[in-house]
Amino acid sequence: MTNFSFCNPVRVEFGKDKEKNIGKYMKECDSKKTLVLYGSERVRKSGLMDVVEASLKENGIEYVLLGGVKSNPVLSKVNEAIKLAKEFSADSILAVGGGSVLDSAKAIAAGACYDGDVWDFFTGKKPVSALKIFDIITLAATGSEMNKGGVVTNEATKQKYSLDAPCLYPKVSVINPALQATVTSEYLVYSASDIIAHSIEAYFTATHHPELIRMQIEANIKATIRTTEILLANPDDYDARAEFAWAATMALNGLTHLGVSGFGFPNHMIEHAISAVTDCAHGAGLSVVMPAWMKWYAPKNPAAFERFAREIFGKNTAEEGIEALKAWFDKIGTPTSLSGVGVTDANLEEVIKVTLMHSKDWGMSDIYTRESLETIFSLAK
Amino acid sequence: MTNFSFCNPVRVEFGKDKEKNIGKYMKECDSKKTLVLYGSERVRKSGLMDVVEASLKENGIEYVLLGGVKSNPVLSKVNEAIKLAKEFSADSILAVGGGSVLDSAKAIAAGACYDGDVWDFFTGKKPVSALKIFDIITLAATGSEMNKGGVVTNEATKQKYSLDAPCLYPKVSVINPALQATVTSEYLVYSASDIIAHSIEAYFTATHHPELIRMQIEANIKATIRTTEILLANPDDYDARAEFAWAATMALNGLTHLGVSGFGFPNHMIEHAISAVTDCAHGAGLSVVMPAWMKWYAPKNPAAFERFAREIFGKNTAEEGIEALKAWFDKIGTPTSLSGVGVTDANLEEVIKVTLMHSKDWGMSDIYTRESLETIFSLAK
Repeated sequence: MTNFSFCNPVRVEFGKDKEKNIGKYMKECDSKKTLVLYGSERVRKSGLMDVVEASLKENGIEYVLLGGVKSNPVLSKVNEAIKLAKEFSADSILAVGGGSVLDSAKAIAAGACYDGDVWDFFTGKKPVSALKIFDIITLAATGSEMNKGGVVTNEATKQKYSLDAPCLYPKVSVINPALQATVTSEYLVYSASDIIAHSIEAYFTATHHPELIRMQIEANIKATIRTTEILLANPDDYDARAEFAWAATMALNGLTHLGVSGFGFPNHMIEHAISAVTDCAHGAGLSVVMPAWMKWYAPKNPAAFERFAREIFGKNTAEEGIEALKAWFDKIGTPTSLSGVGVTDANLEEVIKVTLMHSKDWGMSDIYTRESLETIFSLAK
Repeated sequence: MTNFSFCNPVRVEFGKDKEKNIGKYMKECDSKKTLVLYGSERVRKSGLMDVVEASLKENGIEYVLLGGVKSNPVLSKVNEAIKLAKEFSADSILAVGGGSVLDSAKAIAAGACYDGDVWDFFTGKKPVSALKIFDIITLAATGSEMNKGGVVTNEATKQKYSLDAPCLYPKVSVINPALQATVTSEYLVYSASDIIAHSIEAYFTATHHPELIRMQIEANIKATIRTTEILLANPDDYDARAEFAWAATMALNGLTHLGVSGFGFPNHMIEHAISAVTDCAHGAGLSVVMPAWMKWYAPKNPAAFERFAREIFGKNTAEEGIEALKAWFDKIGTPTSLSGVGVTDANLEEVIKVTLMHSKDWGMSDIYTRESLETIFSLAK
């Protein structure tokens, strides 16, 4: 295992009805004024926001509401919210929604404590302070509820980049699997794709990967596959929903990357470029990229790909393992070809150019050249 | 998954040479005066204490040293250290050693902030404040480096009990696997037994156990078995030592018990009574208790035992799985019969009486009666 330093201070409140205590949790963390951020009006129509507001009032926490965060959250909305948080003198942000809302909240929390342009934090600068972050996560996928990172798209430049700093760990994350039962089957399978993507990036690309961590990742992938199938048949299976949610959290909370070194997130890098151009769902883009990228990358790390084939799908070769993953994506209904996420002959060149910009800014341009990207995209047709 | 609340704030500094920075880590946590606690003189002879003292001096941290903590640490030593910590006005305790030293440090940290008898914290009262706790863990086994509990023996009453409170999480735990390479093969296999014991208690006794958590536990047990065998052949295999150390941490840091409910620690309860009487090594006592307890308990939860047999040892029945574990203990050389840990016809009655006291105080006397304990002990002969 490579040397590591690990400290994940997030308090996770997991389970039924936990959202009812959100005001209490925030009060315990000395929050008095909060900006409540959300996405679509679904969280209001479902009654969740009524529960949240009642709990905030009961605990004497003043708040302002701001909705309208969209999937593939954008910088303009973050800037609008930073202005509001500053005007309101919020000491915290409460994200009620999925990863897009929480990732935006992290950017807002950092931006509200900074006089410069928040985009600085996506292009090299590290935030050193932030408003307190709380969340009620209604979609299991990104793992943002137990990590210190977030992804936002600068719609002017089509850069879909991330910020990352210890001050961005949420203070308290509420994960009530029952709240996630209303997610459409479409977003369920996109989420499954995202969890698997978080699991495989280091698994395949790391130069050093401890066996124990590999086994933990495999457990996570198997749980994701099993519970996705249960939930497609019965969306109200609470235990499956709960394990799916926890697999999402474990895939990117740092624990399944401990002692691992020399890895990158190439599938994410490529997908971010696709969704920056076409605005497709992140998980959908990933299920298109992964099988193609895997076919292209497998010869660079055959042992890991053969192991994946054997452990996850009971197959004998790297190729069979990749085909099995693609077939599973097809079975559950998440796209596996570029046309399924809006990439056509008309915009492929733009996607490649944006990917090349990403690969340069992510420090991966030695491997992800025009030539290799053209190969990967051709495998995804 | 059963509802849970989880927050583990321990900062883990894992890897080669990390102990050289101990003073820096402590300074970052505002520690200025510390009591350095250790066990035998081995940590002085090995040069480790020189490294520690140099780092403390370099970072301007005043300290006093106190050695002599023994395996199965005792209350009298804890009380001696509390007195010293108070006299010195220590703001922290630095444990340099294995689980016994760190568990003692936790009791000392709580006792130094309390006017009453520290044993109160082992018999129902919860400490609400404690000195800051730091450690350099030189034996992987107890998991104490990333949890909030500790075990101490009251030698006057033969109660080997635990304390547990959020204020007892270490601030920083240093785990350098290379420092653990000098552990004797005897203590290595006792440690393996302890890790497996921590892994199976809930696995077999829980009334609710999520599949994903089961898989994580199985990964941990498999890693422990695999790395123990590597280390017996080659104690200097750093990667195996590192995975062994991390498996020990993961077995009892809370993560492999999330969403699990209705479980107890009966093997520990029984073993604590044995070692309170005979002063055997904890892991040795556990490898005696486990196969016997498993034979007795298996009919109460056949599915879990069959799964264990299949997943860990590739066996078909619960009985075969239990025999395989016992055979593995025999193979690595940790005892599997009472005589191996000093329990004879002459003191068995005393052991049973002490176990009955433990089972009453641990709230398990409905199941662990004289009759059932006699059965379990007879299976361990």
